Amino acid sequence: MENKIPYKIYLEESEMPQQWYNVRADMKKKPAPILNPDTLKPVTVEELEPIFCTELAKQELDDTTPYFDIPEEIRSFYKMYRPSPLVRAYCLEKKLGTPAHIYYKFEGNNTSGSHKLNSAIAQAYYAKKQGLKGVTTETGAGQWGTALSMACSYFDLDCQVYMVKCSYEQKPFRREVMRTYGAKVTPSPSMSTEIGKKINAEFPGTTGSLGCAISEAVEAATTQEGYRYVLGSVLSQVLLHQSVIGLETIAALKKYDIKADTVIGCAGGGSNLGGLISPFAGEMLRGENDYKIIAVEPASCPSLTRGKYAYDFCDTGKVCPLAKMYTLGSGFIPSANHAGGLRYHGMSSVVSELYDQGLLEARSVEQTSVFEAAQQFARVEGILPAPESSHAIKVAIDEALKCKETGEEKNIVFGLTGTGYFDMVAYQKFNDGEMNDYIPTDEELEKSFASLPNV
Amino acid sequence: MENKIPYKIYLEESEMPQQWYNVRADMKKKPAPILNPDTLKPVTVEELEPIFCTELAKQELDDTTPYFDIPEEIRSFYKMYRPSPLVRAYCLEKKLGTPAHIYYKFEGNNTSGSHKLNSAIAQAYYAKKQGLKGVTTETGAGQWGTALSMACSYFDLDCQVYMVKCSYEQKPFRREVMRTYGAKVTPSPSMSTEIGKKINAEFPGTTGSLGCAISEAVEAATTQEGYRYVLGSVLSQVLLHQSVIGLETIAALKKYDIKADTVIGCAGGGSNLGGLISPFAGEMLRGENDYKIIAVEPASCPSLTRGKYAYDFCDTGKVCPLAKMYTLGSGFIPSANHAGGLRYHGMSSVVSELYDQGLLEARSVEQTSVFEAAQQFARVEGILPAPESSHAIKVAIDEALKCKETGEEKNIVFGLTGTGYFDMVAYQKFNDGEMNDYIPTDEELEKSFASLPNV
Repeated sequence: MENKIPYKIYLEESEMPQQWYNVRADMKKKPAPILNPDTLKPVTVEELEPIFCTELAKQELDDTTPYFDIPEEIRSFYKMYRPSPLVRAYCLEKKLGTPAHIYYKFEGNNTSGSHKLNSAIAQAYYAKKQGLKGVTTETGAGQWGTALSMACSYFDLDCQVYMVKCSYEQKPFRREVMRTYGAKVTPSPSMSTEIGKKINAEFPGTTGSLGCAISEAVEAATTQEGYRYVLGSVLSQVLLHQSVIGLETIAALKKYDIKADTVIGCAGGGSNLGGLISPFAGEMLRGENDYKIIAVEPASCPSLTRGKYAYDFCDTGKVCPLAKMYTLGSGFIPSANHAGGLRYHGMSSVVSELYDQGLLEARSVEQTSVFEAAQQFARVEGILPAPESSHAIKVAIDEALKCKETGEEKNIVFGLTGTGYFDMVAYQKFNDGEMNDYIPTDEELEKSFASLPNV
Repeated sequence: MENKIPYKIYLEESEMPQQWYNVRADMKKKPAPILNPDTLKPVTVEELEPIFCTELAKQELDDTTPYFDIPEEIRSFYKMYRPSPLVRAYCLEKKLGTPAHIYYKFEGNNTSGSHKLNSAIAQAYYAKKQGLKGVTTETGAGQWGTALSMACSYFDLDCQVYMVKCSYEQKPFRREVMRTYGAKVTPSPSMSTEIGKKINAEFPGTTGSLGCAISEAVEAATTQEGYRYVLGSVLSQVLLHQSVIGLETIAALKKYDIKADTVIGCAGGGSNLGGLISPFAGEMLRGENDYKIIAVEPASCPSLTRGKYAYDFCDTGKVCPLAKMYTLGSGFIPSANHAGGLRYHGMSSVVSELYDQGLLEARSVEQTSVFEAAQQFARVEGILPAPESSHAIKVAIDEALKCKETGEEKNIVFGLTGTGYFDMVAYQKFNDGEMNDYIPTDEELEKSFASLPNV
């Protein structure tokens, strides 16, 4: 099986991106601005400053600068776990008997276990540079909280994580990783914030939600001197930092003169998808190249395929700015049966607008088929994928099997965002044949759409 | 922090070792032969064949062939996760303020989470080539069982794992990873083997031991048609396969013209230590180079620093051949307080003989200091290390701090054998300040030495 293209394409450190790419700069029609929930006018940097670090607030609102220099300190940190490999899935191809060439950009080779670290280290850096004491955030499954804990530990920043209570209890190991990195982890809703007290009073015994944890983290940031709030997905600044994934992917493909045909990413809030596809979409927007880009979401939380493109709240407490996005309504919570992550009700406004402009298509997949794909992949490629990542695997396999029918030698690239070591409860359900698929009914969606603000 | 030496030195696939190195060939005084427990004579390949695959039995007894070709199929598999990076620990050096240069060979970037896969894939390959149906093995913490499950899945072999009962119950996630790869995992002692029934009858409620699980796995292999037993450490064949670690390390150092001064590895049964140091020890045996080689073991299971160099049983059921090794006696079981792995009572006969000849020194360290080193390393280098690996980290830091005193710019290389994602119960104890150190008393050791056979 010797081949000119190695199993793993690694860039040299000197070939790593020096700048992040801001796809908004190449979009003629820009994503709709985020709005101040009180005035319903586009928010300004000044309005964001009490919540976000100033530099990050500027990045959030800048839709014209195409490239941002990656500060030297961040590039040094990146070198500890980047460049990440672009892997040729020779063994999967052989197993499928497909003429397609399958590549995956593997972001799981770091302790956070996912791509989240790319933005965590950037956000921690700007907080440190601003002279802050610490940051607050929320985490659901725990990937983002772990990544942020690592980043804060590196820059000696205090890190306060509001962890959705059911995850806090069901994923004690994630919690311990964060504690090992020095983070303070609080189950949400807690009794240490006003909004937490209110939610606990209204819904006694609630096990929390991401939207609720966001509200608590924002409150904690704005009521403590020297703290700001940071977020691991959805935001445009996060997509900017995550563009390092797509930029490295394109550089690695170029190194071996490979032209991608299909680019596939899983989609929750859009951090990985946006990061992976931005540079590809940029080439399309500039008329340089054409790609088939596919966003894959769970059938149980189908914001792109069944959501509305509208302004919505980003959090349960409604303290964050309003964003125009594909959304299921901020009151939507996927069934507890859904194990596979990607549970956010909305979608990055950048990804939403690219989708609306037809630059990418979307597919939803059911979780049993996702875990089947995960297991098939794990058995031949060796890596145990995160459930989130496995959504992309599922569609990559589907596309490769289509090529088997047509005989096409397409180059299929997908993002393998992370590893599943902390998701073994879900794997156990799958191994025991106890996994259920859940798809919200039209009636359920109509109900949650009713929570959309009238903007 | 730009530097000529990158953070991570990766070999090209074309630079990967084509052969394993057998250090026994360069030893003038060979390790003592393993003995048939019935005849007390050196075992023959024929005597080993009912237990081991024929090719592996040959490798086990061959102490004259210096190099074995790595079969093409194994090299293909290696390419999925190898070459592993040799990482320059710039951030740790900076944190310590040491003039020393610290490098670590990181073997944790695969789903088994450790170096164990290097030998698992080799043993599965030879089993497949021999036309076997499957293999049996034991696992304690679960790294080896996971690695073997992955390897068997790749070659479509049945995989039966006897998992020490306390680990089976305390590490359900490890178990689920193995099941995801299709392995059959049985808690040991079980009621499905004669030896298991006997041990259960003698010690009702026992939570098992590695020595007992070995006996069960050997029985299962020899009583089923088309099965053989495989083992992840201690054996000379395992050290042979693991030499890929040391060979890659030397090749990576050469690539940047670096001469190691100190080479450090953690030592349980010797699989990682032997694999890492064999090629270095070979250079010493051939008079080409000189290194300070340090084996690090837990103070709670100190086979090299406090054991006897004598023939001993490898398993509780006494069904395996006798090996001459540094041992605490096959009846020795470290305190349940000991969380850090490396619990085997003996030590590879190759490592034992190298130690006896003075080619390496040994140190024992207490577990609290090991976890302190682990946390310090994790916070600056980003990787959450396995407790086993952290024994080597502890001594690498000690050596680097000595250089700080003396001002020496030594090159310190250590083996980072794996990640700690499945060891969070131990980390939690450490985070909560509930970790105890345990050192066996002289009286306890004298008692367990009494179980040594009179050979």
